[in-house]
Amino acid sequence: MAEGTVAILGLGLVGGSLARDLAGLGRRVLGWDRDAASVRSALAEGCVHGVLGIAPPGGGRWPDGFAEIEEADIVVLALPVGASRETLTALAPRLRGSLITDVGSTKRGIAAAAAVAGLDHRFVGSHPLAGDHRSGWGASRRGLFQGAPVFLCPTSTTTDDALERAEALWRSVGAVPQVMSAEEHDAHMAWVSHLPQAAASALAAALAGSPWGPDALGPGGRDTTRLAASSTDMWTDILLENADEVGPALEALEEALARLRAALGRGDRREMERLLGEAKAWRERGG
Amino acid sequence: MAEGTVAILGLGLVGGSLARDLAGLGRRVLGWDRDAASVRSALAEGCVHGVLGIAPPGGGRWPDGFAEIEEADIVVLALPVGASRETLTALAPRLRGSLITDVGSTKRGIAAAAAVAGLDHRFVGSHPLAGDHRSGWGASRRGLFQGAPVFLCPTSTTTDDALERAEALWRSVGAVPQVMSAEEHDAHMAWVSHLPQAAASALAAALAGSPWGPDALGPGGRDTTRLAASSTDMWTDILLENADEVGPALEALEEALARLRAALGRGDRREMERLLGEAKAWRERGG
Repeated sequence: MAEGTVAILGLGLVGGSLARDLAGLGRRVLGWDRDAASVRSALAEGCVHGVLGIAPPGGGRWPDGFAEIEEADIVVLALPVGASRETLTALAPRLRGSLITDVGSTKRGIAAAAAVAGLDHRFVGSHPLAGDHRSGWGASRRGLFQGAPVFLCPTSTTTDDALERAEALWRSVGAVPQVMSAEEHDAHMAWVSHLPQAAASALAAALAGSPWGPDALGPGGRDTTRLAASSTDMWTDILLENADEVGPALEALEEALARLRAALGRGDRREMERLLGEAKAWRERGG
Repeated sequence: MAEGTVAILGLGLVGGSLARDLAGLGRRVLGWDRDAASVRSALAEGCVHGVLGIAPPGGGRWPDGFAEIEEADIVVLALPVGASRETLTALAPRLRGSLITDVGSTKRGIAAAAAVAGLDHRFVGSHPLAGDHRSGWGASRRGLFQGAPVFLCPTSTTTDDALERAEALWRSVGAVPQVMSAEEHDAHMAWVSHLPQAAASALAAALAGSPWGPDALGPGGRDTTRLAASSTDMWTDILLENADEVGPALEALEEALARLRAALGRGDRREMERLLGEAKAWRERGG
């Protein structure tokens, strides 16, 4: 195991951007992605120094720069949440690093998988708030995490050393760590991230039933539906992982819409002003 | 009446920006706003050359640059839709111009008011798609309409001359006119503008019931709720004016949300992928 070597599984927007920044800082980065073209680009651009010896899709081995995951001091799972959980379980016996982390948008599931695999001492869940609706290596870029909050969720048995390594890793790429439990994290995200995503998708799904396309939207409508272009697989995973927290948030949105529609139906100007006013006051709170 | 003089009632984001552009083109602009500070700024910046002799709020007369609305060849009502309608009705006997238009987000109501006032020959409804969640003179700027679509809705009796003047007015500030009936306009807007606005407000109202503020949102959540910061008065007016068209659109959104929540509740991955996939396909259609 090489001190300081970071293995990143998944070279999409988040994993790819992390590889770019860490390689730029002079760290040795080992990479893997199910998309062979992304791996080749990352190698060619010098953002990844070795390809992890995990079978590529379709079997066989990666052509060059072959490396073992045992060489990594830090392992970052940057796959969709379900895939990160399954990969953690499958690779557990080979994970020798002093820190195992991920970048997923939900944190209870992966923490539970780490505990089952006996990795909970060395596991810290990470969730950098730096994604957007784009995905893949092509969307990755230097500086993605600069100034971005990153939620770090230690398990109940995570060592101080592992937590400090996670904080140092994210600080090195400019992110601002904030420590909380996986439970707090998932309750929080259900409202501030998963609900807006679900709202944008439901809005676009409703609009898909109208005669109009997205080119008919003004700037405001484009903003409101932008998240609907996010990865379907990734978000199906996230919403299902956090279903118990997301359900009540969705219900609250349905209630607000029903309240607005009822007021509209009876021409109740005061109630409409109250609801739109509450919304405006909340949105403008603290900027 | 001075050929080419434009009177703009309401110097907010849209009216103010129109005043800036028209003054920049060398046209004589007469202005009015219920906010005296906005009027003074517009005069001081040379974007308005005379203040319309309509009583300022609280009575009395504007201090300087006094002018009569009879002097205007073109009258633009740039007030909230309800106020534009009421002002049109109140000022009808004094409107001598060859074109009377507005900038509101709904078009059936103002067209009906123009017909009642006997102004329908000279009336063309205008709706430039250039607003955002900001408002007031302070938000107005040169070039706001550059490249923006502007929907023009003639009545059944609008003269060719009036329609041509409306097209020329908007073309002169860079907007791209598109002619349709007020009925077509309102049905279209219910989906592509009023529904996204209502969705953003309902989302923010739901979030207002959570423990979190807007500073907890990521970039995607900020996009999705941005419209909730729009003017409460303006949007209450718009939604009520177009209630018969907005109601069914809101219902479609509630149905999409209920469908998503049901799939989430029973862990139905395929149905969730179907809904999120439909939304993504629509959002990415045509860019």
